[in-house]
Amino acid sequence: MKTPDLPDLAAIRAAGERIARYVHATPVLTSHSLDEIMGAVLFLKCENFQKVGAFKARGACNAVLCLPEEEARRGVVTHSSGNHGAALAYAASCRGIPSHVVMPDNAPKIKIANVEGFGAKVHFCAPNVAAREKTCAGVEHATGATLVHPYDNVAVIAGQGTAALELLAAHPDLDAIVAPVGGGGLLSGTAIAAHGVSARIRVYGAEPAGADDASRGFRSGHVEPMPNPQTIADGLRSTLSERTLGALREHVTAIATVSEAAIVAAMRLVWERAKIVIEPSSAVPLAAMLEGTLDVRRKRVGVILTGGNVDLDRLPWQA
Amino acid sequence: MKTPDLPDLAAIRAAGERIARYVHATPVLTSHSLDEIMGAVLFLKCENFQKVGAFKARGACNAVLCLPEEEARRGVVTHSSGNHGAALAYAASCRGIPSHVVMPDNAPKIKIANVEGFGAKVHFCAPNVAAREKTCAGVEHATGATLVHPYDNVAVIAGQGTAALELLAAHPDLDAIVAPVGGGGLLSGTAIAAHGVSARIRVYGAEPAGADDASRGFRSGHVEPMPNPQTIADGLRSTLSERTLGALREHVTAIATVSEAAIVAAMRLVWERAKIVIEPSSAVPLAAMLEGTLDVRRKRVGVILTGGNVDLDRLPWQA
Repeated sequence: MKTPDLPDLAAIRAAGERIARYVHATPVLTSHSLDEIMGAVLFLKCENFQKVGAFKARGACNAVLCLPEEEARRGVVTHSSGNHGAALAYAASCRGIPSHVVMPDNAPKIKIANVEGFGAKVHFCAPNVAAREKTCAGVEHATGATLVHPYDNVAVIAGQGTAALELLAAHPDLDAIVAPVGGGGLLSGTAIAAHGVSARIRVYGAEPAGADDASRGFRSGHVEPMPNPQTIADGLRSTLSERTLGALREHVTAIATVSEAAIVAAMRLVWERAKIVIEPSSAVPLAAMLEGTLDVRRKRVGVILTGGNVDLDRLPWQA
Repeated sequence: MKTPDLPDLAAIRAAGERIARYVHATPVLTSHSLDEIMGAVLFLKCENFQKVGAFKARGACNAVLCLPEEEARRGVVTHSSGNHGAALAYAASCRGIPSHVVMPDNAPKIKIANVEGFGAKVHFCAPNVAAREKTCAGVEHATGATLVHPYDNVAVIAGQGTAALELLAAHPDLDAIVAPVGGGGLLSGTAIAAHGVSARIRVYGAEPAGADDASRGFRSGHVEPMPNPQTIADGLRSTLSERTLGALREHVTAIATVSEAAIVAAMRLVWERAKIVIEPSSAVPLAAMLEGTLDVRRKRVGVILTGGNVDLDRLPWQA
């Protein structure tokens, strides 16, 4: 089967220019004490400081800004456990068009409030793929809104790749970049951007062992089903698409898996040492270094910290 | 009574050059959503990202680096509820000299570990002024170490002022700067630096109502005793000295007081909106804006976020 379309470096650069007015060029932090623990020199790309608190603002803004005027006017719709929903709502508000977000009825409170705060209409559904696709299709039919998929979308992938471009502009001498992988939109964009800039840079993915469809698919060459993912990293419960799997197979060196305990430990380490608030998904690449499933010792490593939306009343290290 | 010696702008600039190798030029963050809540344009000087997790690294490094060689060799000693102790230990380790820190036996675990981690010898005492002064004097006598007071020290004040210099170098058009006030070392250095750069900039202090000796002393012109301060902001339980009171009376426009509830609310807001970890003391200036005891609406306001050392197992918004 032919791999579906993917953006190239030029498309990612164009996305960067298109979204520049609407997203932050987030800072890159370093932490001597984290470096000592991880045995590598880390460059933390702080997408937790991004608009809506996650990198998803990049892809959503690019997708919304790419829509032809007539299509845009009817609005956009998506399904999302949270950050992409908030991002699409934000992107739609930037362009002044309506947005609809289909969310599982067990989504974290802070993420629902986030989405509604940007003016989206939230449609709740049961927390399974069939229910959310049916609800999404219903909204498309009723409103004429355009579906903006969280990751199986060329413009979204191009937008997500802009974080790596900024990281490499600030630190061109990185040996490697690591990003978490859920549906693979971020990792695809990151890998295409990094390899476009320099074929020498290695790009790695990291995912929870309880949601390991990406590493299985990366080995088998097929999209692997993951009907019941089990992980605290709620941003990483999605399954690769043919499109993102194709990008990963072409540009990524390896995908590491990590335990839940390592995710919580890495998340807490970042809060304590780097003094920043990150959500569990953000901690997955560092968890892979902690557990040794990813070996980047003595390398200069960019790490995409994907988001910072957590419920401060329910922290994972508290019983 | 003549005011004891204070640094001038030149001394603060010299401190900045002296300590540059040992401290971070911390980033200045902005947050649209915090700006909307506070009704001002905020520039957050992130000393929570500083070495040892607090601005105190600046003053301690300057004081240790200013010591003559022979004196330095005998080591340094201080009493501190935490951050200054860690900072002095860090500064001593940079110069390769011994350090001793007298701490109350009820100090937070993370702060004790921090101090010991930098190689200081910790001497515990009862949590009162008499006990800590006696223990400190004992260490001075036994070792020949030089006392580096947390704030009643010209070199320490000069070091603390370097944060404001960096902030103003990055954002020269600020209308105001706000810093918390405990013993007044940071606020003195900040105010001298800011007025040295431009007489137009207003400098404000903020302190807990339960430790309000600075605002009382600011009004009365005398150091006001505060035998039993009650506040979650453990970095702000100290009392002004004649030296710091003199600096504040000359350079500060007003000192606001805040409730404990506002401190916790402001701290949580910063975690949620700016996605950074700050300790309660850091939140006091923003608490004053929330409560309206400090009116900087529609101004461009620099805020010194003083530190990020918190016990993640015991957050103040949790019962």
